Amino acid sequence: MTAALVMSLDQLQARLSRNHMAAWMGLSITSAAAGRIVLSAPWREEFISNPEHRFAHGGILATLLDTAGSYAVATRLGRPPQTIDMRVDYLRPAYEATLTVEATVFHYGRTVATVDAQVSNPDNLTLAVGRMVFLTADQRAGRPAS
Amino acid sequence: MTAALVMSLDQLQARLSRNHMAAWMGLSITSAAAGRIVLSAPWREEFISNPEHRFAHGGILATLLDTAGSYAVATRLGRPPQTIDMRVDYLRPAYEATLTVEATVFHYGRTVATVDAQVSNPDNLTLAVGRMVFLTADQRAGRPAS
Amino acid sequence: MTAALVMSLDQLQARLSRNHMAAWMGLSITSAAAGRIVLSAPWREEFISNPEHRFAHGGILATLLDTAGSYAVATRLGRPPQTIDMRVDYLRPAYEATLTVEATVFHYGRTVATVDAQVSNPDNLTLAVGRMVFLTADQRAGRPAS
Amino acid sequence: MTAALVMSLDQLQARLSRNHMAAWMGLSITSAAAGRIVLSAPWREEFISNPEHRFAHGGILATLLDTAGSYAVATRLGRPPQTIDMRVDYLRPAYEATLTVEATVFHYGRTVATVDAQVSNPDNLTLAVGRMVFLTADQRAGRPAS
Repeated sequence: MTAALVMSLDQLQARLSRNHMAAWMGLSITSAAAGRIVLSAPWREEFISNPEHRFAHGGILATLLDTAGSYAVATRLGRPPQTIDMRVDYLRPAYEATLTVEATVFHYGRTVATVDAQVSNPDNLTLAVGRMVFLTADQRAGRPAS
Repeated sequence: MTAALVMSLDQLQARLSRNHMAAWMGLSITSAAAGRIVLSAPWREEFISNPEHRFAHGGILATLLDTAGSYAVATRLGRPPQTIDMRVDYLRPAYEATLTVEATVFHYGRTVATVDAQVSNPDNLTLAVGRMVFLTADQRAGRPAS
Repeated sequence: MTAALVMSLDQLQARLSRNHMAAWMGLSITSAAAGRIVLSAPWREEFISNPEHRFAHGGILATLLDTAGSYAVATRLGRPPQTIDMRVDYLRPAYEATLTVEATVFHYGRTVATVDAQVSNPDNLTLAVGRMVFLTADQRAGRPAS
Repeated sequence: MTAALVMSLDQLQARLSRNHMAAWMGLSITSAAAGRIVLSAPWREEFISNPEHRFAHGGILATLLDTAGSYAVATRLGRPPQTIDMRVDYLRPAYEATLTVEATVFHYGRTVATVDAQVSNPDNLTLAVGRMVFLTADQRAGRPAS
């Protein structure tokens, strides 16, 4: 992919940190390229769903996938886009550990972009995968975004 | 649906309140029947994604859909099941307000259950819809759950 | 829904019959309203996936869901739109019988429309359900369709 | 992936050819490994959806994705499994050409397997991608398949 990164990593991180949910989760951008981003999330006790088995709520993994997908598009669009829809497949429980989520835009169109993302643990096991469609057109005017 | 509610509303709420994420979100069960549940979520500033437009992060809506879906199955299974996969469609922004999520099991099989859920605002506008598959088989033994 | 039906049932059927795949399947429109359509598909031996159990291929059910979804949007848009993405949940085998598929637009936006559809057998059992997103914007100009 | 191929390519092709729909589409298996399969589909005029633009119906691409996904699981399970659910993202129109579909099992569990698949044209452009969940447990007994 030869498209340019239209926001610097610092600009992307600044924008992400203003997102209350991302700030609460302590999300930081590890790397960014055009159409690709990696985020890191330190563990929080509030992530836990099942208190005996102590794995994270599926909603936390979905939040990571959605956020990373949106910022992967932002690297090309210049702003995080609206999510149209998302599929999440849960593969393994997310136990207490820093979680990493990586997202890649695999189809960038004038109206929508299609993105794959995956959440991994420090052992590089994939815990969940997401496939998402984001709106790249300017929704107010209904015109393409760029 | 003539199946019995295998956990009382108090039992369901007690189980839900032990879920750290649900507790952080302040989720309460408004009503429960066999294969159907309604949850209520008071607003939190941490839900906000876009700080100017002040709507909730899509991950919060996904968390509500997943939680309600899981507890809709729990009304029949006796415990909240694992989520296999989830689709979320985002229809409208979720602005500051108490959010309501309703989930209904529309196919309950020996191995998986299929569930629809929707998040609404106090004006009864649907903000997001989810479709989910949960594991009803006993995963340790690989036998059906009941 | 108070939107008008922008194509008559005869116009919709004429358009559908020019679709080679729909013609091969013998699809006929049973009823149409703004944002809603019902199609009927007579059985064909070629639909069969498993020759012993003689149920239809999942792809046939997906084709019915996609076609009905597209024509549900066409009742408002004036033409069958492009499908952006589709989820299909398979609930029961589709044995030899006329299949009915009903689709309803539940969110019609300037850029995309979101649609639910279900395939039923003559006993009114739901065999598969679909949720789809279609492009309502004019893709050439990237402008909204209407 | 070190799992063994439990059906030979000839056995897989023999089984596939007994599937009426696959036979009608003329599907042939190009290559098979444990958890991975490639199928080829010659063009048919009946695939066409839009008679002016002459691209294939989305249902044909869904049928290819579902079939390839099922046979990717069959390489490990010894039989094509039931599809639980499928997501399809349509990326580009499928114009007249031999279509290739490749599927890979990326998570194989005792109860379900999760599979990615993509349809490509002879220029190696991806036309559609699918993500599917198949039942690997023995559904009659509700026991794991192996």
